[in-house]
Parts: sequence; C-alpha cells; structure tokens
Amino acid sequence: MKVKELNKLCINAASFLGIDMINSASSGHPGIVLGSAPILYTLFTKHLNVYPGEPKFINRDRFVLSAGHGSALLYSFLYLSGFQLTIDDLKHFRSFGITPGHPEVGTTPGVEATTGPLGQGIGNGVGLAIAQTVLAQKFNKNGFSIFDNYTYVLCGDGDLQEGVAHEAISLAGHLKLSKLILLYDSNKIQLDGKTDLATSENIQLKFKACGWNYHLVDSETESISRAISLAKKSENGPTIIECRTVIGRGSLVENTSKVHGAPLDKDDIIQLKTKNNYSLEPFYVPKEVLAHFHKTIFQKGRNIYMAHKQLLNEYQTMYPDDYKLLISFFNDNQILVNRTDFKELLDLTKNSTRNVIGSVINKYSTLNLNLIGGSADLTSSTKAKGNDGHYSSDHLSGRNINFGVREHAMGTITNGILLFGGLRTFTGTFFSFSDYMKPAIRVAAISHLPNIFIFTHDTIAVGEDGPTHQPIEQLTSLRSIPNVNVLRPCDTKETIGAYEIASLSKNTPTVIVLTRQDLPNLEQSNFDVSRGAYIIDREDESKKIDFILLSCGSEITLCLEAKKILASKFNIRIVSMPSTFLFNKQSDEFKNSILPNRNITVAVEMGTTEIWYRYASHVYGIERFGESASLNLVLDKFGFTKEKLANYLINL
Amino acid sequence: MKVKELNKLCINAASFLGIDMINSASSGHPGIVLGSAPILYTLFTKHLNVYPGEPKFINRDRFVLSAGHGSALLYSFLYLSGFQLTIDDLKHFRSFGITPGHPEVGTTPGVEATTGPLGQGIGNGVGLAIAQTVLAQKFNKNGFSIFDNYTYVLCGDGDLQEGVAHEAISLAGHLKLSKLILLYDSNKIQLDGKTDLATSENIQLKFKACGWNYHLVDSETESISRAISLAKKSENGPTIIECRTVIGRGSLVENTSKVHGAPLDKDDIIQLKTKNNYSLEPFYVPKEVLAHFHKTIFQKGRNIYMAHKQLLNEYQTMYPDDYKLLISFFNDNQILVNRTDFKELLDLTKNSTRNVIGSVINKYSTLNLNLIGGSADLTSSTKAKGNDGHYSSDHLSGRNINFGVREHAMGTITNGILLFGGLRTFTGTFFSFSDYMKPAIRVAAISHLPNIFIFTHDTIAVGEDGPTHQPIEQLTSLRSIPNVNVLRPCDTKETIGAYEIASLSKNTPTVIVLTRQDLPNLEQSNFDVSRGAYIIDREDESKKIDFILLSCGSEITLCLEAKKILASKFNIRIVSMPSTFLFNKQSDEFKNSILPNRNITVAVEMGTTEIWYRYASHVYGIERFGESASLNLVLDKFGFTKEKLANYLINL
Repeated sequence: MKVKELNKLCINAASFLGIDMINSASSGHPGIVLGSAPILYTLFTKHLNVYPGEPKFINRDRFVLSAGHGSALLYSFLYLSGFQLTIDDLKHFRSFGITPGHPEVGTTPGVEATTGPLGQGIGNGVGLAIAQTVLAQKFNKNGFSIFDNYTYVLCGDGDLQEGVAHEAISLAGHLKLSKLILLYDSNKIQLDGKTDLATSENIQLKFKACGWNYHLVDSETESISRAISLAKKSENGPTIIECRTVIGRGSLVENTSKVHGAPLDKDDIIQLKTKNNYSLEPFYVPKEVLAHFHKTIFQKGRNIYMAHKQLLNEYQTMYPDDYKLLISFFNDNQILVNRTDFKELLDLTKNSTRNVIGSVINKYSTLNLNLIGGSADLTSSTKAKGNDGHYSSDHLSGRNINFGVREHAMGTITNGILLFGGLRTFTGTFFSFSDYMKPAIRVAAISHLPNIFIFTHDTIAVGEDGPTHQPIEQLTSLRSIPNVNVLRPCDTKETIGAYEIASLSKNTPTVIVLTRQDLPNLEQSNFDVSRGAYIIDREDESKKIDFILLSCGSEITLCLEAKKILASKFNIRIVSMPSTFLFNKQSDEFKNSILPNRNITVAVEMGTTEIWYRYASHVYGIERFGESASLNLVLDKFGFTKEKLANYLINL
Repeated sequence: MKVKELNKLCINAASFLGIDMINSASSGHPGIVLGSAPILYTLFTKHLNVYPGEPKFINRDRFVLSAGHGSALLYSFLYLSGFQLTIDDLKHFRSFGITPGHPEVGTTPGVEATTGPLGQGIGNGVGLAIAQTVLAQKFNKNGFSIFDNYTYVLCGDGDLQEGVAHEAISLAGHLKLSKLILLYDSNKIQLDGKTDLATSENIQLKFKACGWNYHLVDSETESISRAISLAKKSENGPTIIECRTVIGRGSLVENTSKVHGAPLDKDDIIQLKTKNNYSLEPFYVPKEVLAHFHKTIFQKGRNIYMAHKQLLNEYQTMYPDDYKLLISFFNDNQILVNRTDFKELLDLTKNSTRNVIGSVINKYSTLNLNLIGGSADLTSSTKAKGNDGHYSSDHLSGRNINFGVREHAMGTITNGILLFGGLRTFTGTFFSFSDYMKPAIRVAAISHLPNIFIFTHDTIAVGEDGPTHQPIEQLTSLRSIPNVNVLRPCDTKETIGAYEIASLSKNTPTVIVLTRQDLPNLEQSNFDVSRGAYIIDREDESKKIDFILLSCGSEITLCLEAKKILASKFNIRIVSMPSTFLFNKQSDEFKNSILPNRNITVAVEMGTTEIWYRYASHVYGIERFGESASLNLVLDKFGFTKEKLANYLINL
C-alpha cells in the first residue's frame, strides 16, 4: 500500500473507532475525533517515543490531551498502539471501566494526565517539560542521555482561551522549555459557534510575545510531521504548531458546532464510512492498520526502551551513586527529617507557623533532593522556597521555581511535575488566593497526586490587608474536596508533624494552612497528627466534662487561655483537630474516645462554621467577611479574645 | 508657580500623604505610592471627569485601581480631589473606617471597585467599558451624549501575570472597547524581586496580538498625558499605556522589592521629604496643591456634571420615555414576570431545571431591558443566554455576551458591568467550573453586587462526562461564602421562585444551581422559596414523625419516591431547602416549625455532607469523586435510587 493510502486508512481507522465508541456510548465528542485524528496519527506513528509494553518507561515522550473531551480518539490510538486496552474496553466507552468520559491518569494505561477542565492540560505539559530538564540536569552524563524526552500537548481553541493556559504559556516561554511542543487543533469552531464570536487573538503574535516558536500547518501528515521535526530541533524555547483542521471532518455537520459534543446520526456514520470505502462494521480495524501501528509504535518503542535499559545498566556500573539516587527518586523514597533536628525551632517560645514551614521545607529539601517548588510571587511572605537557587534555563539545578503571580498555573504545573515521576513538589501563596488555584487542587485530588499546597495568612488575623485578603470560607471549601487532606497545625510541633504526613503521602494532595502571626510553642502539643485529632489538654478526669473545645491552628492557644479563665467554673477538655480528613478515617472507637459527646462540644475556629456541626452542637466562628484593621483590633471585633470566648461559654 | 513645579509639588503631596498614612498604620505598600503617583496625578488632574460632589454622577469616568495594594495613593487623590474623605480618615488608614487596606466599593466615596486579589480589576474595567457602550447605544441620541465616559484601570506587573487579566484583555480587544484605557505601572519589580525572575513577555506584542493599542511613556506628566489623549481618540480598540516607573521612587530602597509591602523607615521618610524641600510635618498639604486639585478636578467636574444635568433635563423633555427607562435602569427597578406567564412551562409534566432557567431568563430579559449576560461557551448547554442577539462592536444592542471559555473573566466582567450602575447581569457555565470563577464570586459578595451566577449540570447525574465534570464539593464550597445566596431548586416552580429572588436582590449575589436531566414538575412544590425552606410533603400529623428528609434539587423527587416505598413503615416529613442562606436568616420559631428535631432529620444530597450536619444527625451524601457512566448507572452506583435510599432509612 502506498504511504498516502496507508496514512489515510490508519487515520480513518482511529477516528472511526472513536466514532463507534461515541455511538455505542450515545455520548461523547465526535468533532475533535474526526478533526484531530491526523495530528495524533502523525504524532503517534512518526514521533512519539513510547513503549506500550512498559507504559511507565521513564524516558518516554509524554503526551497530554489537554482537550480532554477528545478521549475517544486518545483511547483509539492507545488501543492501536498496543497499550493494555482491549476492543471491549473501547466498546464500553464512558461506562465505568478503563475508558472514562475524560482521560483519567491511573485509570487507563498510556494516559498521562487527567484532563477535561480546559486549559489545565497545558499547565501539566509545562510541568512535565520542567521535570525533564530537572532530571536531565541532575542525571545525564556525557554519553548518557537518561532523560531527553519530549512533551507534547494537544489543545483546542477553548483551552487557549482559559487564563490558566496563558499563565502556563507565559512561564514556559520564560523558562525556554524547548522540548515542549503544543499541538493546536485549530478548527475555529467552539461549542457556541465560530470562535470569532468570542475571540480575535492573533495566536502567532501572542505566542511570539511569550517567547515561543510558531508554525502553521494544514492537516496533512507530511506537513504536521515536518513541523514537529522542526520543533524538536528548537533550542530557544517551546513551540506551538497550529494545525488547521476541520471539526467533524467528513461528517454531514462538519465545520459546525453541532458536531462538537453530540454523537453523529447513524446515517451520517454510514455516509462517512461509505465515502471512505471503509467497512460499516462497528469497531472494525483493518489488519494493515494494526500492523503499521505495531511497527511504528510498539516495535520502535520496544527498541528504544531496550536501548535505554541497556544505557541504564551501563550507567549503574559507571555511576552507581547516581543510579541509586535515580531509583530512589522514582520509588518516591521520601526521607523524614529527625524531629530532633528541629531543636532550634522547638526551643523558641513562639513563632509563626509560616516561619516554621520555611525551615521545615528547607531541611526536607536538603535531605530529599527531588523536592522542588516555589511560590506565586510571595516567597518572602509564605517562606515556601525551594533549595539550590532559582530554577531557570541557565540554572536547571535550582529547585525554587518563581511562578510569578500565576497561582492557577502553579497548581497545574506542579501537578505536571508530579505526573512525570521522580520528583516531589510544593507550592506557596496566601490562603485567600487558594481560590485562584482551586481547580488545580481538585484535579490533583482526582489524579491522586501527592502535591503539597502551602497556604499562609490563614484567617482574619491577617489584619490590615482587609477582607479580600482574610480567608473566611476557604477552610470549609478545601476540606470539602474529596481526597484532599487539609492540615491546620497549632504550633511548631504540629507543623513539623503535618509536613511529615504530606511528605509520606502517596495518593493524596495535602493542604497545609499556616499563620502569619506568632503562636506560642505549646508544651501540650503533639508531633503526631496522623489520626487527625487528639486531646491536647485533658479535663479533670475525676469529674464530669462540662465542655469539649474542639479547635485547631491559632485558636488552640485561645482555647487554652479561655480554659484558664474558666478553671474554677468548668471542667474543660480541649481537642486539637488539625485534620478533619484524617479524623474522619478513624474507627468509631477512636472518635468516641476523643469526642464522646457532641452536645457538650463547642468548635472554635475563625472561619465559616459548616464543617464543625458534624462534631459539635455549637460553633464559635465567623459567618461574614473580615475587616481591615490591626490584628488585635480585628480579633477583638470578631470575638476572638480569651475573654470573649470565655464569656460566650459562660452564657451558653 | 511654574507648571512643572506645581506638578511636582502635587505629586509629592499625594505620595507623601500616602507614605504618612502607611507610616501611621505601620502597614501598607509604599512602593506603588511613590512609583505611580505621577500616573494618577496626570489622570486625575488632566483627564478624569468626576465630580466629587456627586460621586455617583452617571457619566463620570470610571477609575479602577486593579493594583489594590496602592490604596493609600488612591485615598490621597480622592481626598485631594474633594471626595468625602477627611484628613482624619487618612490618619486612620487600615483601621476600620472608610480607608481600608484595599479599596472597597461602597465604603469609600470615589472608589469604584473592590480590588486587591490581582487581575480582577482589569476584568472589572472591561465590564465598566462594556456597560458604557451598552447604555450609550441604548440612550444616546443625536446631540445627546448621555453616556460617553472613559474607563481607566491602573495595573501593575503582578496584575498582568494573572490568567484572569489575560482572559479579560483578550475579550476587550475582541470587543474593540476603545474607551478602555489601561495604565500599566511598569516598574519591573515584584514582591520576589525583579520581574524577569518570572516573566519575559513582550507586553507590546502581546497586547497587539489581542487587538490593543500600545504606548510606551516615561513617568513625566506631559508624556503620560499625551498618551492618554491619544488613547482617548482611539476608535479601533482599547489602549494600554506602559508607564516606566520606579517603584518606591526617591526612597533609599527604590527600585527594589523591599519597598513593595513594608513601611519606609522613619529616616528614609525624612530624607525623602527633605530632598524634595517638603515639610516634615506628617499629613501636611500645601494650599497651592489643594487649590490646584479643586480647580482641575472639583470645579471642572462640577461644570461637567452641571452641563450633563442640563443635558438630561433637555433629554427628559425630548425623549420622555427613554428618560423614564434610564431612570428606572439606575433605580434598579426590576419587573417580576407574572408566574402565570410561565403556563407553558408549568403545564409540562417534567423538564430539566436548566431548560426552565433558559425560558425564565428569556422572559425576564423581555420585561427587563437592562438585563445582559451570557455563558462561557456553553450557551446551548446552560441555556443561559441574553436577548437581542450577540453583543459585539457591530451590534451593541445585543444582550448576549459570548464570553468564550473564560469563566473567571466572565465573573469579573459582569461584576464590572454591575459596578457601572443601570444594568443587571447573569453568567452561565457548568457547575463544576464554578471553581474557575470562585475568586470573582467572592469579590461580588464582598462588594454587595447582585450578580446572578447560573450553574447547570449540578451533580453526578451529569453521567458520562465523569468525575472532572461531576460536581461534588461545589455546593458546600459556594454555600460557605458569606453573603452568597445559593439556590438549588427542585422543579419548575422553585426555579421560577429562585430567579425572582435573584432578580430582586440588591446586595447579594445569587447562585442558581440546576440540573441537566429532566425532573418531574411536582404538585407539592412552591414558587415561594424566600424563607429558604418549607415542608414540601407533610407527615401524617396525627402521628409522631419518624423521619424528616431534608433535601433540595433533584433529590426532592427521590425523597418523595422513597417515602412512598416506606409509607407503611414510617411517618415521614419532607423538607425542601433550596437555600440554606435564606433559611439561616429566619427566626428560631420558623426554623423549629420546619425542622423540629435534628435527631430524626436525615439530609439527602448528591454532594459532600458537611453543610447538612447543622440541621441533620444523618447525611446521605457523597464523600468521593464521581464516575463516568450513564446517568442511571451512576445514580445506582452511588446509592441515589429510591430503593437504596429507602433501604438506608430502614437500616438506620
């Protein structure tokens, strides 16, 4: 068969598989399947170095489908390439199983990122590309290109309209990530109609402004392949390849928004296959197609994988220590810092927990050379800073990433770094601005990524900066996300313990919420917060308990002080609950031992109250926005002084 | 005094007032105060048409300080211009009162927007500029330029790094908002150091790519003024004026990040004032300065205001109906649609609540000609569409704004439209993507803006699209924001009632959460949901209640069905609570009449459970992410069938 014919047959096979999947599920997005099949075909068969037999091969090229609604097409290509998907998996598209509606990393072999919420996949790609440079700098030696893979992202018009995409694009250009290649499925149609209803950006100029290379191509394999080859040679920055495509190409509704998100009519499928001389049998794949994919992807991939394996063996011989470190990176062997090594911190009578986390991250970074992270232009405020200087194209060994004021991209980029494997990440910003990156925290949680999100300036105690900068509802908001462990420690010991948990986490993102202001280092506090809560100050056990004060963070000190005032009146237990997430996982027996009686339990927290009614009959919280004034004035106004809390309890 | 000298004296007076304020508060941001004073001075005294005696003058120029941390400088200028701020207000900067840490609209006369969370002010500016064009198109007549004001925004380097800024910039260029002028305080320093640590964007190219005009100027009044004059003449798009400034100009720490966010040392203030031959007396203002501001702002503004008043009087005579409409717009006289006018909808046996809201918005738009809004490229899915065609530079009377896939900007832009006055707004997207716009919802709530946020596809019932598209925690998250009224109606009647509340709201944003799937139209449901909850299905009052099922949205139908199954076993009351926000505001007596006993109350909602423990001892909810499969399969898997709910209650 001639090359052109074979290309066409393969592209038809992949896209018609996708169409059959959507038809079988009665749900999905045929437009992108038909439109961008030539792009994925070119990428998979001519450039993408992956070995489906070893889908986690560390030097594989990474491909992220940022336009996650194109999942049917991705699964087609993964199946044809020989990843562990059966034709039956394709037939059960969007029906539990391993071919969900949008790609989910960990669910489908060969899927590199959970995508669907637009724009974020571009950030993931930037993170994947950063990770490659970091590991290459650390491990590559003369003659040993252990890490030299490319990162490819397919995005659509919608992706590029999202702010998070622009943040990531801007940073990628700044960091000169030459091995990042963005394939832009440019079909000028989005859900509401032609893209010119909503945008008239000059994409070429915009990307040039951000330091990217730009190529414009049609939908032909040769053109796309040539552009990818050029992009791979870039040494001065990432590349976007704008591929002019036709959404729903060949269908009766091609080039309209109708074909975006609803299955094709049966008649349309028949005419589409017929005019392409293709079998009408659903899920039919010609043998030549399977053979071609086997040769160009599976076999080529196996050769590349085997050669790399050989290279790694030689590397192990010549650089045994580096090899050992590399393996420990990819096994995610995190080393805990000895608690006693924090003696200097622990000896202080008081400190802000943001200061504590700064020292903790610093010590962990020294022991764990795969820890990388940074803040969204608030390093001096959050103290969350990576070691070894700033990461830049001139200094790839720097482990502090200056994300700029780009919170959302920071979240998606660190998610991307984690997706690469081998590295661990943290981020830092004000807690109030966690709102800006919430979409990325959610995707981290769905993706089981153990990202570490450091948020400081945690309550109205921020003071002067006022309501926009004073978190109120953020604690409830983040605690309510499934698979997110929010930890709000009350002093140095608990902060150290919180970071230990974050460091050891394998499948759960951790949010650590910290103060701007100093807190006393408490004698009663624990390092171990792994069960979510403990009795930090016990009642007189010979008597009936009058109140259980349930609290966390800076309010623990307040509860201890109020208890002193009320010593003669009430027999009080104080429970520190830095993590509702961990507490909720404990046995009923344990829970009852800590919180035996909801009716006498009063929760105390400077935030909205919802979260606490599960455990407490009364909640001393804040159900309005904060105000701008100095710390003490604000705390007094909102009732968070020991006297006011004591008074509240007396009058309860 | 020579012009140059006077300019310098005025700039010094304004910036030193700002410095004294920060010093007096021991908190604030001197860098921007010293750096961008020449920009604000030029804008205020040479261009900005405002009349401090009538700060709400409808045709005033709007100025938004997107870099909200420059509040001290803004307050200085407002004071000098003659707005109702006293020198005492300046002395009590950041200490309750009317000069808070970041600008808050409604708190300080002359402040047009609540800013601080970066980037959003640019979106507000875009909204203000859109509003001007809409009202001009509607009301201006030959010889009657009722609306021809400019919108100015001051932003810094940080603002421009935020994704939301880029979204707004892109849309502003597309919409050719020629009366929007962005003043860019370009000092190349941000909190973490030089901006080139984090960005190397070519701003000129980037803005050109987005259809903007670009001018580069120094910090001299003449240059800035010339550029503003040019920008005002633009007819082909908005303009950015990049003003090269020096952060903290004149201080000992000028041009460093040190001067960004901490008060200057006392010695530094002395040297600064001394070398400028300025009085060391704190809060000193030379008489010439007050006189100059009085002349160039207050008096000029009064003349403009009086002329406009005269114009309006003549307009009233010549166009009495238009005048009446204009006044009703600015009085926010919303007209409720008669409930009987929804007969066609009400006669249906079932419908999705997203379909209902589509019809509701359509009818409200017909009666209320000041209602404008749109969706983030999901119009056909959310049904939230404005009337009279698409808004564009060629069709300013269109009331449907195609926001593109720019959820966050959509929030900030509609907030901006509301800030203008005269118009009302709504937005639409999938509920899952409410995360992308949460920062704007929060600012709407702080700013008391009655924005209407329509979110559809509200639960796991989204089905095939899978976990990224299935909201779980979003209900808890948005309900926990102060001053946000989240309404989740259970059928057509409640949806109509929910929109009535949104329409009548003056100070509270409303979130309406709707289904993708059909729901039966219930006989038992109410239009009136203004008290947040009501008994939708009463128990047998002659007997003891066994269970109160507390629910809302699509789960009300489920509860009714489960009750039928359990009719012989249990005496059940069902409470519909579309709004916890409204219910929490009711008297204890009312609350107890609806929910008399927490111990027998079971809340039922397809989302995280936190919110409900306040009212219920048991919550039948979802504490994990969803899955991709068809609606019925997913509901069954997560236990949301009548049989499974009934079974749960039997075993309770």
